[in-house]
Amino acid sequence: MSNPSILILPGDGIGPEVMTEVRKVIDWFGARRGLAFDVTEDLVGGAAYDAHGTPLSDETMERAQAADAVLLGAVGGPKYDELDFSVKPERGLLRLRKEMDLYSNLRPAQCFDALADFSSLKREVVAGLDIVIVRELTSGIYFGEPRGIVMEGNERVGINTQRYTESEIARVARSAFELARKRGNKVCSMEKANVMESGILWREVVQKVQDEEYPDVELSHMYADAGAMQLCRWPKQFDVIVTDNLFGDLLSDAAAMLTGSLGMLPSASLGAPMANGRPKALYEPVHGSAPDIAGQGKANPIACILSFAMALRYSFDKGAEADRLEAAVEKVLADGLRTADLLGPDGGGFVSTTEMGDAIIAAL
Amino acid sequence: MSNPSILILPGDGIGPEVMTEVRKVIDWFGARRGLAFDVTEDLVGGAAYDAHGTPLSDETMERAQAADAVLLGAVGGPKYDELDFSVKPERGLLRLRKEMDLYSNLRPAQCFDALADFSSLKREVVAGLDIVIVRELTSGIYFGEPRGIVMEGNERVGINTQRYTESEIARVARSAFELARKRGNKVCSMEKANVMESGILWREVVQKVQDEEYPDVELSHMYADAGAMQLCRWPKQFDVIVTDNLFGDLLSDAAAMLTGSLGMLPSASLGAPMANGRPKALYEPVHGSAPDIAGQGKANPIACILSFAMALRYSFDKGAEADRLEAAVEKVLADGLRTADLLGPDGGGFVSTTEMGDAIIAAL
Ligand SMILES: CC(C)[C@H](C(=O)O)[C@@H](O)C(=O)O
Ligand SMILES: CC(C)[C@H](C(=O)O)[C@@H](O)C(=O)O
Repeated sequence: MSNPSILILPGDGIGPEVMTEVRKVIDWFGARRGLAFDVTEDLVGGAAYDAHGTPLSDETMERAQAADAVLLGAVGGPKYDELDFSVKPERGLLRLRKEMDLYSNLRPAQCFDALADFSSLKREVVAGLDIVIVRELTSGIYFGEPRGIVMEGNERVGINTQRYTESEIARVARSAFELARKRGNKVCSMEKANVMESGILWREVVQKVQDEEYPDVELSHMYADAGAMQLCRWPKQFDVIVTDNLFGDLLSDAAAMLTGSLGMLPSASLGAPMANGRPKALYEPVHGSAPDIAGQGKANPIACILSFAMALRYSFDKGAEADRLEAAVEKVLADGLRTADLLGPDGGGFVSTTEMGDAIIAAL
Repeated sequence: MSNPSILILPGDGIGPEVMTEVRKVIDWFGARRGLAFDVTEDLVGGAAYDAHGTPLSDETMERAQAADAVLLGAVGGPKYDELDFSVKPERGLLRLRKEMDLYSNLRPAQCFDALADFSSLKREVVAGLDIVIVRELTSGIYFGEPRGIVMEGNERVGINTQRYTESEIARVARSAFELARKRGNKVCSMEKANVMESGILWREVVQKVQDEEYPDVELSHMYADAGAMQLCRWPKQFDVIVTDNLFGDLLSDAAAMLTGSLGMLPSASLGAPMANGRPKALYEPVHGSAPDIAGQGKANPIACILSFAMALRYSFDKGAEADRLEAAVEKVLADGLRTADLLGPDGGGFVSTTEMGDAIIAAL
């Protein structure tokens, strides 16, 4: 039997440098824990545009479809700001999400004990925080038609369409309820059912899925604006939050920032099971490509390394190995190691991207 | 010449009780400062539905159109949760915004010195905070067609449409630039131009308005998800934020919560000038109808009183009187008076809605 395959797409900005550290970690698991992977690397985003004139070539798309897991760094940068919408770096990422049908995006917002003082929130508000936002990732206003900029009368109109079918809502709701069962058993669904019909359908379907399939899981509903508020006020009231593509984009970024550990947060985007039983899956850090610090050894590789931990857990069923990797990360943080993004109140030492990667390997 | 007219729409939940305090303040300005208003009162939201089967009757709509300013309390409550979408309390408010064409919604997020410790954020992050979110209020996904829940194949689909014309974007941009000129001279525009064409048009038009009409105002652009993050990280980096209806809904609620003073924050929704030169205008607190505490004397009337201060400033050109009212509010807070929503770290005294209103009158 061949090894499970991982396609690595470093992308733009700090993507390549953090991915170098992830490769060390992958190699360590191969050499020391007998977990060998077939790793290949390819281009996405601006890097792919520079090489092929498209942010994701058809060949790369095929490789992603065939891989057991895709690991992505980050896409985008000011260099590509003037590009036409259809070839912007982001379109590469959106094409992967859409064509792999990765409808369930898990975004943990977790506050690392060693870093609680880095948050702009008071320590007691965030210490111990551990919530997950489940964001619908393949539909909604990101993909709905009609869309575009058209002439009407004598002026232009910008149009986007939010569309959600019952089955699209039901499947992401199920994934949130499944996740909640392994955690605090509580789901809060967020929409704007008071002003949007798509929000009414969202609320109704999530409720129905709970009634019929997950009566054991506690479900509440909240308007997304109130949700944004409550995340800022007392985020620990939540366990799992399920919401649509656009609300999930804003709410998960706000939640990530609350933890004070943006450079620390991984994400998993999961689809339906493949023939081998593994879900289609893409893992990526929540942070962006940070072009301002790219190539300077300042980037924090932890979010991307923890994304690989999520791959171990969700794609390769190696929960214990994922725990091991997460524990190694916590150890180096407890030891006071800090990359440049984390120089803060506790004045921890300043280490480079590479040194952080090496320290995590050592802690493993 | 007749007095300027104010239409008061107390609405639901705590709306009526906070409005009682506002009326005292209005009367005080009439008796003591020679600012007499013709005040009439009418129904909106659930209260209007209960009386007339509609959340806003045509007669009330006409009165609102004719008034020099409308003061609204709050709408909505669990009692109306099962109502059909078309007669929900919120539709009354949305109809007012739309038919009065109140395209520019000013939402200050201001941290009162006496209350800085009430925030979930660290004192240094919020103390002295004074930003305004200018939210487009009459278009976007709140009002775009097509919308609804329809059958497609054998399942239902929820649909909403985001639509922005160039002129809709330009006019709210202008109002943000005008405001910035009276403040810190800095505007940050937020959208998702990386994934939405309506965001591309938004960015382009805001930039063009600045280039051609406000070259003296500093303009930056930010993706709305990054904006949500930055609001949580270091809100003082902003002066005026301009954004669309839906993003404005979430971002202004998050910003309001940051100040720790949700029960304190007013808003103004402004439209085009009427024949008498005054803008069409509706003033309302940012907080909701808080049905859980309605009728218990626990509500904080300050947000609604400060909404009247905004009316003095924007509708009646009485900036000095508005300053006077705002100073009175700051004084009672500095004196340690607190309604129930504000019982917190400094253990300030507990006063009722009425006592707070009376104290503000006394401070005037
Ligand atoms: C890069 C961009 C297309 C993307 C999104 O909007 O989904 C990002 O913000 C994210 O949250 O993953
Ligand atoms: C009550 C509701 C319709 C309204 C909105 O969504 O605009 C409210 O949340 C607000 O922000 O004024």
